[in-house]
Amino acid sequence: MNIQEIIAKKRDKQKLSKEEIDFFIKEYTNGNIADYQASALIMAIYINSMDEEETTNLTIAMAHSGDILDLSELGNVVDKHSTGGVGDKVTLILAPIIASLGIPVAKMSGRGLGYTGGTIDKLEAIPGYNVNVSEKEFIENVKKIGISLIGQTLNLAPADKKIYALRDATSTTESIPLIASSIMSKKIAAGANKIVLDVTYGSGAFMKTKERAQELADTMIKIGKLAGRETVAVITPMEEPLGRNVGNSLEVIEAVQALKGDMAEDVKEVVLELGSNMIKLAGKGDCLEENKAKMLENIRNGKALEKLKELVANQGGDVSYIEDTSKFKKAKYIMPVRLEDKGEIANRNGEQREIQGMGKDETKKEIIYEESTTQRTIKELKAEEVGKLSVFLGAGRIKKEDKIEPEVGITFNKKVGDKVENGDVVAYIHANNEEKAKEAVERLKKIYKLK
Amino acid sequence: MNIQEIIAKKRDKQKLSKEEIDFFIKEYTNGNIADYQASALIMAIYINSMDEEETTNLTIAMAHSGDILDLSELGNVVDKHSTGGVGDKVTLILAPIIASLGIPVAKMSGRGLGYTGGTIDKLEAIPGYNVNVSEKEFIENVKKIGISLIGQTLNLAPADKKIYALRDATSTTESIPLIASSIMSKKIAAGANKIVLDVTYGSGAFMKTKERAQELADTMIKIGKLAGRETVAVITPMEEPLGRNVGNSLEVIEAVQALKGDMAEDVKEVVLELGSNMIKLAGKGDCLEENKAKMLENIRNGKALEKLKELVANQGGDVSYIEDTSKFKKAKYIMPVRLEDKGEIANRNGEQREIQGMGKDETKKEIIYEESTTQRTIKELKAEEVGKLSVFLGAGRIKKEDKIEPEVGITFNKKVGDKVENGDVVAYIHANNEEKAKEAVERLKKIYKLK
Repeated sequence: MNIQEIIAKKRDKQKLSKEEIDFFIKEYTNGNIADYQASALIMAIYINSMDEEETTNLTIAMAHSGDILDLSELGNVVDKHSTGGVGDKVTLILAPIIASLGIPVAKMSGRGLGYTGGTIDKLEAIPGYNVNVSEKEFIENVKKIGISLIGQTLNLAPADKKIYALRDATSTTESIPLIASSIMSKKIAAGANKIVLDVTYGSGAFMKTKERAQELADTMIKIGKLAGRETVAVITPMEEPLGRNVGNSLEVIEAVQALKGDMAEDVKEVVLELGSNMIKLAGKGDCLEENKAKMLENIRNGKALEKLKELVANQGGDVSYIEDTSKFKKAKYIMPVRLEDKGEIANRNGEQREIQGMGKDETKKEIIYEESTTQRTIKELKAEEVGKLSVFLGAGRIKKEDKIEPEVGITFNKKVGDKVENGDVVAYIHANNEEKAKEAVERLKKIYKLK
Repeated sequence: MNIQEIIAKKRDKQKLSKEEIDFFIKEYTNGNIADYQASALIMAIYINSMDEEETTNLTIAMAHSGDILDLSELGNVVDKHSTGGVGDKVTLILAPIIASLGIPVAKMSGRGLGYTGGTIDKLEAIPGYNVNVSEKEFIENVKKIGISLIGQTLNLAPADKKIYALRDATSTTESIPLIASSIMSKKIAAGANKIVLDVTYGSGAFMKTKERAQELADTMIKIGKLAGRETVAVITPMEEPLGRNVGNSLEVIEAVQALKGDMAEDVKEVVLELGSNMIKLAGKGDCLEENKAKMLENIRNGKALEKLKELVANQGGDVSYIEDTSKFKKAKYIMPVRLEDKGEIANRNGEQREIQGMGKDETKKEIIYEESTTQRTIKELKAEEVGKLSVFLGAGRIKKEDKIEPEVGITFNKKVGDKVENGDVVAYIHANNEEKAKEAVERLKKIYKLK
């Protein structure tokens, strides 16, 4: 067997055998296949695709390219994964709720990269919280208090890491077999036997349409089935940011508020949808509506918040921050974003008319002034643009090595569908640098589109 | 502009602009684009192809990635290129004939690689012949005697070299836009304003069918037209080796014999077809039949052979070898290949019946014996297999660094269509090592297929 023959087969739209896929993953991980050979094969897979059997074989081969976590002693462990979003603090809210219902949660999460955030960065905003624990300690934690949320401390699916880096550089990210195998290989290596997937679509997600998200979900469900991991998927929109904040400590605060009963509607919908499926998968209730009620009950009675405190304490974090979120360090500059300029509001009708350049024609200016005094509705707040703005502020990373600032970010008062009038504060920018804060205010004004 | 966007366009079957192609070639040559990015693009080009305009732009960009030879002071210079073959000594015969008719021949040739030979290796079999001359000397030689055949001393089309190496390792060789641009970029850089192409097809060629060869020829003719180089192409079969010998000095000797009037029919056909087109392109005769007659006349009157001697002398070679080819050093072992074993002949009917294993059944053996006494016809002598055997003997290279032995090779007494009887010597193996010679005899017996 040699890599040229394998490349030639996929190039010619032929099906790759399990042996050929295993050979590619093993030899690429070992460095015996060059990056330029792997990228040619990846492009051929992107264009000519892979069927379910091939995708499953690729997934399993990547899962076995590194460590495989053995969680069998914990019984049914349900893992949850989101395909990425902006302002997505769902895990911080959902995991304590699920654990408070007696279902073990043993979850390894990632860091943010590009415009999407990562749960691990958010957890690290809590002073003292240790995301780097050994496999043994991880399992001990779950046994002791029913929950542990940590970073990817093991060498999980290194083949996926290598391939993922190549895909980014060679325009081969948006392929369903490649996305599905990337996600599922890490989930399988992470040891859970039940998997709930949050497949996002829209401006802030890999998949731009609901149809593509459904296709990706179907593929991952089939891989899960073929790999012996029961998998369900929930399709959720990620057109605007999720919830009320983007930024690491801001999102932790929002999560605590949610567990105290004050949860944004869009967040609540995703949390309940995913959680009710997790409970069902764990064999603790077949009716999704009843499962949602159990979750809401554990918020009302404070058990979910208690579980979060237990988790934070057990991982070395300072619980007083959860008890009193005003203790979180604030950004140096918190600036309101107002669509207050009459022109500003008038300008947001999607036509991008230049108000500044109209000084000579006073009649036109008058007309715009009149238009702008009426109430308007927010029609768009693109998650991808907001994500990029949060990276600019220091809340996320462009490169792996970039440092993040936990306290910076954006708070939204108004989101899509909300009415705005002149002078309304639609959002706040949290920044540690005045110039950046001012620039971010201007940029965010442009991201808001009105109708 | 960035390479990811360019890759994404071709991935999505879109047409690349001249600027995008120029950017790719320039930055890849400079090392600013990684091999793994180039190979992803090349795979996308392989699968989604390129139209004529894109292929021409790619050709011109590659031609301009290094030195461009300026032959304008020589007037109309006709270059000739073959897409590769086994036993192809056409240039050695054709170039002196054309030069003897007063048409300048300034040709840079390549070395053999893989199972196909190269003109430069053949010229170096002539003691003293110097293939490494400067651009200035090259042009001076052509001015002085009307002909110079040298190696690729300049840095011609370095982008093509880099891409060619990638294609070999990533199964992207057999693509018409990529083959056409590779060949034409070197021809354009080599400075001739008229180009005659010998596009081969069959077992010993890149293109396996006549239809694909025609398609490649059409593409190159169009590129030539768009690039302002008048180009014609001749389609020739390369199913069995060309002529009577494979091996470097053996082919030089065959070329000298051809210029003395003793030319194998298959070689003669290609030489006349290409040459008559070269003469026409040079504006020295519009009728191909008359051009062929002129060529044959210059063989008969000795002018073509004289021109070869002039060429050899002018490049520092020892002309006495041309005058008396028996001076060429011979291989240590010259072994006949006989299809003499009764079983051997009977065995060659394509069914690959095992004679040795039939000892127990004397009746069957008798039948085969009877069959084998009749005359048989050679139905196949695959050029690719012969080429690989010649490399095994030391006549060619697998890697660029491999040394070749000029005197080794194969002489064919019988080729496809010839009748053979028991005991006939069908070929001779020329080798410097007895074991290799014996093994080659056995291998060649298996390459001959009878009907």
